[in-house]
Amino acid sequence: MESQERLKPQDERVRRSKETVLKVTSELLAETGLSGVSVDEVSRRSGVAKTTIYRHWPTRSDLVIDACSQLSTSQSTPDRGSFREDITVLTKDIVKLLQSARWPSVLPSIIDAAEHDPDLAQIHSGIQVGHTKPYLEVIARAVERGEIPSTVEPSPLVATLLGPLFYRRWFSREPLDDQFVNGVIEQVLSIAKK
Amino acid sequence: MESQERLKPQDERVRRSKETVLKVTSELLAETGLSGVSVDEVSRRSGVAKTTIYRHWPTRSDLVIDACSQLSTSQSTPDRGSFREDITVLTKDIVKLLQSARWPSVLPSIIDAAEHDPDLAQIHSGIQVGHTKPYLEVIARAVERGEIPSTVEPSPLVATLLGPLFYRRWFSREPLDDQFVNGVIEQVLSIAKK
Repeated sequence: MESQERLKPQDERVRRSKETVLKVTSELLAETGLSGVSVDEVSRRSGVAKTTIYRHWPTRSDLVIDACSQLSTSQSTPDRGSFREDITVLTKDIVKLLQSARWPSVLPSIIDAAEHDPDLAQIHSGIQVGHTKPYLEVIARAVERGEIPSTVEPSPLVATLLGPLFYRRWFSREPLDDQFVNGVIEQVLSIAKK
Repeated sequence: MESQERLKPQDERVRRSKETVLKVTSELLAETGLSGVSVDEVSRRSGVAKTTIYRHWPTRSDLVIDACSQLSTSQSTPDRGSFREDITVLTKDIVKLLQSARWPSVLPSIIDAAEHDPDLAQIHSGIQVGHTKPYLEVIARAVERGEIPSTVEPSPLVATLLGPLFYRRWFSREPLDDQFVNGVIEQVLSIAKK
């Protein structure tokens, strides 16, 4: 009992310092992109010793990857009873994330780094595909309910939804206004029903 | 006459040294991203004096922007007589560019820089929108021919086409195989006809 009680605050301290390090890494990523992230600078800003940082993340890449996953878009899976409603919730949610300050300003530096680093490219692709899980679940549920045919291929459907939104946010930088977003939703619904 | 003849090789020399500088800048962009491009390094690699570089491009930004526009995807506008054929030619062409070594590996560093530099963001958006010109021309011609209704909004239609392709290339990094690409073309055709 005694040792357990003594362990708790220590665990809590470890948890907090890990959290601080990830927060500082994310901030640095957002401010400067990947090139500005060094373990030295993270240590300096967070007040966490380099040895502690290296204990949790053996390399700078491990730290960056962890911070990337935390930064990125974990969306929860809605279950509103219809494909239209579920996909609308997911879309409005990702649009809100695309219009937020942090994640969309950091992602390009990860994409850039991935172009020059095959390992990071694979991890980045994995994170991105992982983030489509709520979409795949919503599609699978719609197939189960018989709302969309089982012949619909989930992965291209996700590209049909996210592609135009990402294109406007990062490439053409045109506004993600309601008219555009609703148009994308209607496209996905009409394509899914074929 | 005499002065004109003497001027020609000089013009040719200027043209060549500008070309070399832009080529070296593009190479640096592709290798290291934006952060690796300095006028010093461009001068060193190209053998063109810094004063000459600054004569043509007053700032590093001017040079980078010029190199970016040259790097990027200038597509010619097909005119095959039908919307289906024109859009197919444009799509196959951009997919080929997306699978090439240079442009797709450089663009993310421009996008990244644009997130942190409002001026570059505006220029980048302008370049991207400029590159949709062949698409807009093909759409306008299809409307003229009565193939697609005049109520179709061109810019979202371009996002429907380019978005899923760009999403796969830079975000999920899934293959741009024929099945996927043809699916995107069919989606655009079916949406345009509404």
